Amino acid sequence: MLTKTQHLFDEATRVVAGDSRWQGRTSPDYYAFVGPFGGFTAATILRALIEHPQRAGDPLALTVNYCAPIAEGEFDLDVRLVKANRSSQHWCVELSQGGADVATLATAVFAERRPSWSHQSAEMPEAKPFASIPPYTKVAAPWVKQYDFRFIDGDPNFGASQSRPASAYSKLWIGDRVPRKIDMLSLVSMSDAFFARVFHARRELVPFGTVTLTTYFHLSTEDLAGEDITHVLACADAKIFNRSYQDQTGELWSPSGKLIATTTQMGYFKA
Amino acid sequence: MLTKTQHLFDEATRVVAGDSRWQGRTSPDYYAFVGPFGGFTAATILRALIEHPQRAGDPLALTVNYCAPIAEGEFDLDVRLVKANRSSQHWCVELSQGGADVATLATAVFAERRPSWSHQSAEMPEAKPFASIPPYTKVAAPWVKQYDFRFIDGDPNFGASQSRPASAYSKLWIGDRVPRKIDMLSLVSMSDAFFARVFHARRELVPFGTVTLTTYFHLSTEDLAGEDITHVLACADAKIFNRSYQDQTGELWSPSGKLIATTTQMGYFKA
Repeated sequence: MLTKTQHLFDEATRVVAGDSRWQGRTSPDYYAFVGPFGGFTAATILRALIEHPQRAGDPLALTVNYCAPIAEGEFDLDVRLVKANRSSQHWCVELSQGGADVATLATAVFAERRPSWSHQSAEMPEAKPFASIPPYTKVAAPWVKQYDFRFIDGDPNFGASQSRPASAYSKLWIGDRVPRKIDMLSLVSMSDAFFARVFHARRELVPFGTVTLTTYFHLSTEDLAGEDITHVLACADAKIFNRSYQDQTGELWSPSGKLIATTTQMGYFKA
Repeated sequence: MLTKTQHLFDEATRVVAGDSRWQGRTSPDYYAFVGPFGGFTAATILRALIEHPQRAGDPLALTVNYCAPIAEGEFDLDVRLVKANRSSQHWCVELSQGGADVATLATAVFAERRPSWSHQSAEMPEAKPFASIPPYTKVAAPWVKQYDFRFIDGDPNFGASQSRPASAYSKLWIGDRVPRKIDMLSLVSMSDAFFARVFHARRELVPFGTVTLTTYFHLSTEDLAGEDITHVLACADAKIFNRSYQDQTGELWSPSGKLIATTTQMGYFKA
């Protein structure tokens, strides 16, 4: 099922090592309307950290603040290990282009995921199997084409505008269109692959942009690899839309029932 | 009801302006077992930003990464405006002591909260009135004495150890012990004022520390001031405890039914 050639996602998120400066470039395949898809940017940042020679442990948490649009082309990643402890690391990454202002600011925590008492209090939502649901085909932005969305709840059937706000909840399977084994980079990218909650609540597209995204990783890299999956069950909801900003909370589940990542974000909207 | 003299919390979180370097100091009143209470640290960082002459707009999001213990005494805050846009700002703050390694790393987003379409999809949980519930008195760490906790669900009656994991959910009113009007600083501090979820799930105290905390603010500063409240309804839960880390999600509600802040964190535990 997995392709043997380099996956588009791996090509797109490729970084070139420097000392503290790494380089990447935007990819037309992972473009949104006015710049790269935020999940692409976040995954590229995480990739620079994972590939960094000083990196120790597994990704535990990543926060990405989208400060300004990223122009098409190359970008620099200023990667800094802020503090290293015995079993955790704190990183800061600044993305900029041509020596201009910071366009993306990120912090990350890596940690040794030692065995411990374990308990998953959240239960996986019920979901029809991936294979039984037709893929979503109303594709708008290029990055959407790179994913295989299979909606269970909250199919974005926009245009049916309503007088009362609709549900902001979505439940869907997400995989790469060309199947790719789910890794930490997928989880980051898929964390930002939900359509804006305001689109769902208003049943229409309005100007929207993710402002800040935080993702937590609940499995070790090894345990995630052991799941050996190419799609996740993804659920997202919003609690409030107020004064031009919305929140979003999300969960990414392995088909085996394990909660593998949780995510939250604030996004700007114009409505 | 409000005291006219300087509140302990305001004294504790006091910062002294520099150029990009601000100074604060730990407060014995807001101490945990091995250093300052994380909510105190986060509130002090937010306060330096709010009081910064270049600050524009209201707090929208704050992420605080606790990198290393903070020793008793003075600390420096290296405050940097990373990017300013027309209606938002991105900040980075590093807390250190005596020129040593960074002990706390934070990023914040400030934004002009322009009026917009508004919809609160989440509903406030039912709650008995604050005044009808006796305060929690089993106080351990000094910082806990500064708050008035009134438990509705999840009273931390530890010691009754169980063979199966107990619920990690809590619902309680939180106010300052000496009443203080709720502001953005309170919201940050109270975001970290939940007892560790692992204590609830295991019904026992185990070594625990917050590693990273993210709080989103859903009202403008003016709207929050307009609520004119001294306590919030606070709900917290956890989804997973795995490989030495737990997640936590939380909500802070105004008694009027408005969702004023949401928060999420990852914490280390030993169990």
